[in-house]
Amino acid sequence: MNAAIRAVVRTAHFHGVRTSGIMGGYDGLINGHFRELGPRDVSNIIQRGGTMLRSARSEEFRTPEGRAKAADRLQQAGIDAIVAIGGDGTFTGALKMSEEHGTKVIGLPGTIDNDLAGTDLTIGFDTATNTAVEAIDKIRDTASSHDRLFFIEVMGRDTGFIALRCALAAGAEYVLIPEKLQAIEELSTALYEGSRSKSSSIVIVAEGDEEGGAYTIARKVKERFDHYDTRVTVLGHLQRGGSPSVTDRVLASRMGVAAVEQLIAGVHGVMVGIVNDEVTTTPFHQAIGKRKQINEDLLRVLAILAV
Amino acid sequence: MNAAIRAVVRTAHFHGVRTSGIMGGYDGLINGHFRELGPRDVSNIIQRGGTMLRSARSEEFRTPEGRAKAADRLQQAGIDAIVAIGGDGTFTGALKMSEEHGTKVIGLPGTIDNDLAGTDLTIGFDTATNTAVEAIDKIRDTASSHDRLFFIEVMGRDTGFIALRCALAAGAEYVLIPEKLQAIEELSTALYEGSRSKSSSIVIVAEGDEEGGAYTIARKVKERFDHYDTRVTVLGHLQRGGSPSVTDRVLASRMGVAAVEQLIAGVHGVMVGIVNDEVTTTPFHQAIGKRKQINEDLLRVLAILAV
Amino acid sequence: MNAAIRAVVRTAHFHGVRTSGIMGGYDGLINGHFRELGPRDVSNIIQRGGTMLRSARSEEFRTPEGRAKAADRLQQAGIDAIVAIGGDGTFTGALKMSEEHGTKVIGLPGTIDNDLAGTDLTIGFDTATNTAVEAIDKIRDTASSHDRLFFIEVMGRDTGFIALRCALAAGAEYVLIPEKLQAIEELSTALYEGSRSKSSSIVIVAEGDEEGGAYTIARKVKERFDHYDTRVTVLGHLQRGGSPSVTDRVLASRMGVAAVEQLIAGVHGVMVGIVNDEVTTTPFHQAIGKRKQINEDLLRVLAILAV
Amino acid sequence: MNAAIRAVVRTAHFHGVRTSGIMGGYDGLINGHFRELGPRDVSNIIQRGGTMLRSARSEEFRTPEGRAKAADRLQQAGIDAIVAIGGDGTFTGALKMSEEHGTKVIGLPGTIDNDLAGTDLTIGFDTATNTAVEAIDKIRDTASSHDRLFFIEVMGRDTGFIALRCALAAGAEYVLIPEKLQAIEELSTALYEGSRSKSSSIVIVAEGDEEGGAYTIARKVKERFDHYDTRVTVLGHLQRGGSPSVTDRVLASRMGVAAVEQLIAGVHGVMVGIVNDEVTTTPFHQAIGKRKQINEDLLRVLAILAV
Repeated sequence: MNAAIRAVVRTAHFHGVRTSGIMGGYDGLINGHFRELGPRDVSNIIQRGGTMLRSARSEEFRTPEGRAKAADRLQQAGIDAIVAIGGDGTFTGALKMSEEHGTKVIGLPGTIDNDLAGTDLTIGFDTATNTAVEAIDKIRDTASSHDRLFFIEVMGRDTGFIALRCALAAGAEYVLIPEKLQAIEELSTALYEGSRSKSSSIVIVAEGDEEGGAYTIARKVKERFDHYDTRVTVLGHLQRGGSPSVTDRVLASRMGVAAVEQLIAGVHGVMVGIVNDEVTTTPFHQAIGKRKQINEDLLRVLAILAV
Repeated sequence: MNAAIRAVVRTAHFHGVRTSGIMGGYDGLINGHFRELGPRDVSNIIQRGGTMLRSARSEEFRTPEGRAKAADRLQQAGIDAIVAIGGDGTFTGALKMSEEHGTKVIGLPGTIDNDLAGTDLTIGFDTATNTAVEAIDKIRDTASSHDRLFFIEVMGRDTGFIALRCALAAGAEYVLIPEKLQAIEELSTALYEGSRSKSSSIVIVAEGDEEGGAYTIARKVKERFDHYDTRVTVLGHLQRGGSPSVTDRVLASRMGVAAVEQLIAGVHGVMVGIVNDEVTTTPFHQAIGKRKQINEDLLRVLAILAV
Repeated sequence: MNAAIRAVVRTAHFHGVRTSGIMGGYDGLINGHFRELGPRDVSNIIQRGGTMLRSARSEEFRTPEGRAKAADRLQQAGIDAIVAIGGDGTFTGALKMSEEHGTKVIGLPGTIDNDLAGTDLTIGFDTATNTAVEAIDKIRDTASSHDRLFFIEVMGRDTGFIALRCALAAGAEYVLIPEKLQAIEELSTALYEGSRSKSSSIVIVAEGDEEGGAYTIARKVKERFDHYDTRVTVLGHLQRGGSPSVTDRVLASRMGVAAVEQLIAGVHGVMVGIVNDEVTTTPFHQAIGKRKQINEDLLRVLAILAV
Repeated sequence: MNAAIRAVVRTAHFHGVRTSGIMGGYDGLINGHFRELGPRDVSNIIQRGGTMLRSARSEEFRTPEGRAKAADRLQQAGIDAIVAIGGDGTFTGALKMSEEHGTKVIGLPGTIDNDLAGTDLTIGFDTATNTAVEAIDKIRDTASSHDRLFFIEVMGRDTGFIALRCALAAGAEYVLIPEKLQAIEELSTALYEGSRSKSSSIVIVAEGDEEGGAYTIARKVKERFDHYDTRVTVLGHLQRGGSPSVTDRVLASRMGVAAVEQLIAGVHGVMVGIVNDEVTTTPFHQAIGKRKQINEDLLRVLAILAV
């Protein structure tokens, strides 16, 4: 996120446009928590996890009254346009501001879940998967005992992008993702087969999986096939932090530059994305509405490599 | 662990003594899973997490029959002495082997919990705390929203060494450790006080705490003081893996050298330790029986810095 | 590399094909250093830096006699086809083997330099840039004194892919790459301008830059503009090691699967690549001959963000 | 450093004492660059490398006039006592301020070199060695070719503490440190012996070694024994950055608390240290004058493990 903020502020400065940071998301917008930002204010932040502009969910912004207040604040502060970084919720709010008050908003895809149509990668996805896989590597170091079975739950809301990528990169045996209904029966059979040749196995579980979280699934498997010493880990919030990866920093920088240049060119109501290494824009309603598809070939690769 | 194995093998070689690795702990001993190890077999392992000699708990070794089998195996293989790396359980087994069969065993303190008397540090403690704190740092990166309260559970069995050290290093506000009975009431009050000046707080919970695990404690606090958006993370097994820290590598190397040299000098039935930077030995029954004390001054430092 | 080896071995096994590893590159091939590899031999290597099949440059393989010996060895060992992982040199050798002895070779792009046409990314590039940027982040931590100027040399042979990506991700002020002739004069002027608003600056230098290495350039700049306390770091070989990133692991896994499946389908004499997330193949002579172009837009982004 | 600053500010606050940060070291003192610091100003810094109070060498402070100016500034600002974090140079300045102007200064040992008498560890040493060893681990990953010889230069001014600890932890074959005169002849012989059993070797060189830096030594060895493919790396400034280790954070926190409490108790003109896990104080002139000795036993351990 910080890389995107840095890029927006500096690109605006480069083109002679002033910028303010809105502190604390839409709540900050409603309450007028603005802070003018110059190019030096965003020095030395590109390597930092989190965001220098604190974020928060805003209940009030979901009401027409909240958004009206926000529109007033913008006018009072002389702010002409907003760069909003986030996912579904952020863009839904942006769309409403635009419809109700004509506010010019351009969006950057900032979510670790990588579930937005209109961009190959969302800002945060590469860092989150690297962080998760580093943790899984450490867990596997401990798998030196025989017959260990690890269930590791990663984030992803109701999509399996993080889980599938982590499973491939961590050399996991199986992955459970919402896009693919796998019967517990089938997983248990696979684990049973694998138990004859392998000393330990790792199953990655997407948090939104139909079968329940990692604890539930581990219990269900154990009921069917009680061979392994089973351990469950829920990686949780540590996936959201950490110094961003090179891919994320470059992605966020390019998108931040593009966002400002699009606004200057008169474009708004869209999310900036990068598809096949080219900057693109996608109208908010499409970015939100269309679901990105899991690459089926990656599931096939995982299955082959789990032998 | 690998650094200790490397040191034992190479020191033995240096002094003209042959070594075999026992694969899979005491179970491997009972089943004669020995593998001769030369100085090149332990090349390039000092940086690796886990142990090249898989480990496992052994039920059979807890029986006199199991230990008798083990003694036979040792005699058949022409093994004169054992270097055993582990904690309470490992040394208890070693003591019995010595009493029942005259087996010469020397111990190295290998547990992340740092709860063995007779050494300032156990092998693994420094790495585990660094790994945990890196994870906590990432979790804190996400604490940019207002009013977040994180409960993070770390390992330590029934001691608070890991928890206290992590709390100090992570800049946590509070720590719950088994050595110190803290009423939930008291913690809730402290969090309430803190909530007026701080945007978020971190509480580190030792897994063996009297009040229950992190989930239980979080629930109890929420019942008393429902101000924060509360998140719970159980770091779990990732604390046991990862490339060892410099302190652990140097510690394990020094102890491994000392173990072999003590055995050659005729010393056994003891655990090697390092106290005030000097190599020491402590009889097994003392190392196991005596409880190491938490440094009360560190609790005071934590309280001062949590203002 | 290890992720690719794992994928090749397991995919072959999956399709009922046996595999041997050639130890030590083309030299190993000439000397018949083969080692049969099954799916368990490549367990637990996906997270390791380096390659389990040691590599080495081979002078002998550059001679027709050397290659004839290699062809004999392959025939004797009953090896039908080779998967060769490397860059220009590796593929040139593969092409000659194919022309002179009809050897079936398929290539995987394994070089940190990312300079091969026919694939968006080469295996190792993402890891190397992340490793370099982590190091640069640490160097920047020390830039808390006023008026520090750091010249940091990264790898890339005669291309600037690594340097440009590192410069963007590290938030560097300038980058010197072979593809772009920058007069020292121009750099000195830019640094002079920057010195009025910034406390410290970072210049990334590609090792193959026309103006010389980082030491030479630092000296030349100092002659023109002696304002800064100047430090030079050559990152060197540390860029080649370290646990691979998620992107590299997934990339290598996908490519390894594709290589074996292409060979089974009768395709050889080509390099496997991934372009716009699709597996592709490029004949060796094209992969070697055609130069991949630097994305000019990234240079523009860097210039904007260096304000 | 940041952990120490945090501890000083919060401990002072805890005891009802106000604190200001002096920005930019003694130069900042001369120029009155003070910034009042409260407990919230040092939130969320414990995990950051570098120092939030920029540092700088000051030529002017070496003159009596400079120090007189500094004393005036302190009086004007109503500052009663200083906590100075640094090494030899910092404490020499502190001693003069005390002698010439009666300024109350207490010192914290903040140098990566670990060369100060009066404390087992200096703040920064553990982090620097961990950072260096992580880099060396990466370099070793690339040592998969036969007959590679790496010379890696680490920091340490004119002492070998960093080099020796890194050599032990990295599993290096040899170390060259200023405290131990090793003839190049002897090193060459050892490398020659080793070359018969080992595929690659690592030599750690302390920057202050008598025989010259790593480049010079590598050249001298190559003249005597030209068997290896030799690579030289100078780790340089990256050793000074990075998120501090747990040991350093705890050390700095304890020392920061002690410094303030000693000042309140009327103690000054001393450096705070921790010896055998107990807080101690050492008069500045002793801390500066007495040289800490290398632990000879560690050299012996290194020699045994290099077999």
